[in-house]
Amino acid sequence: MNFKIRPATKQDCKEISRMIMELAVYENMSDQVKISHEELERDGFCQNPFFECLIAEVPEEHKSKEGFTIVGYAFYFYTYSTWKGRSQYLEDLYVMPEFRGNGIGKALLSKVTEVGKNKGCVRLQLSVLNWNTPSLDFYAAKGAQDLTVSEGWHFIRFDGKHLDDLAKGAPKN
Amino acid sequence: MNFKIRPATKQDCKEISRMIMELAVYENMSDQVKISHEELERDGFCQNPFFECLIAEVPEEHKSKEGFTIVGYAFYFYTYSTWKGRSQYLEDLYVMPEFRGNGIGKALLSKVTEVGKNKGCVRLQLSVLNWNTPSLDFYAAKGAQDLTVSEGWHFIRFDGKHLDDLAKGAPKN
Repeated sequence: MNFKIRPATKQDCKEISRMIMELAVYENMSDQVKISHEELERDGFCQNPFFECLIAEVPEEHKSKEGFTIVGYAFYFYTYSTWKGRSQYLEDLYVMPEFRGNGIGKALLSKVTEVGKNKGCVRLQLSVLNWNTPSLDFYAAKGAQDLTVSEGWHFIRFDGKHLDDLAKGAPKN
Repeated sequence: MNFKIRPATKQDCKEISRMIMELAVYENMSDQVKISHEELERDGFCQNPFFECLIAEVPEEHKSKEGFTIVGYAFYFYTYSTWKGRSQYLEDLYVMPEFRGNGIGKALLSKVTEVGKNKGCVRLQLSVLNWNTPSLDFYAAKGAQDLTVSEGWHFIRFDGKHLDDLAKGAPKN
């Protein structure tokens, strides 16, 4: 199938927002999504953007049952390793179910790493839920290491009241 | 003990580099450190910095056995959740062993969250090795969730040859 990978524009944020929700439904966590397309527009298309996004688009004749031509996205940002330097983090990689098996996911992933390489990045990291075998297999087949298994890294998060409490305790000097 | 938390400057990068190595030694991974203080200067103190860093400093009269007055650091950057929006990631939090137990780690952590709150961040995330019980306890005592345990998130990484191979496979359109 014919498709094109291109950087997202501000005008794509409604479509990105739709696919973020589709992915969250797949991950059984749709109640967690609190982001609006206006926030994506504000935070991704400003002077120091918080993220970058690539879009997969098919020609009109291949549009989805519901009429969509934007059928996948890769959402990433730049991070930094104090051991290795410039890195990337892939927050989301998604292809609509009816478009899978056409190499679109692989193409999105490759394009992200190409963009990162051009910026001097030496790592691409991401997180996957342990029950999400299709995704774990997809990344493993391309040479990814599972660092939670091999090195024992655990993911830790502060949010809500605990984050507020920490911020309130900051020294005033 | 008297101490001050302040944003790092370019001139602090040699000291940050020293402490990065001390922390890696503690984590039994010192052979992994490939970063130089020149890279830290270049990547942290440019127009779109890849990271930010806070420094803990003690007065001259409390300097370490080796003569250091910069005794801790918090190294972080901005990330983005497609569910919640603006976030922070704490790459490193370190206090030199002889200065622990004085609230310096807590002060650094709180200051990072305060900086993040002022920028609209709703999460602070980090990673800890599963055998590092003192750190896991430190974060848990302040209300952090271990998402690897509670939700099953695994950390995945591409680097080296596999990253190169992916980038080479990027579509040319």
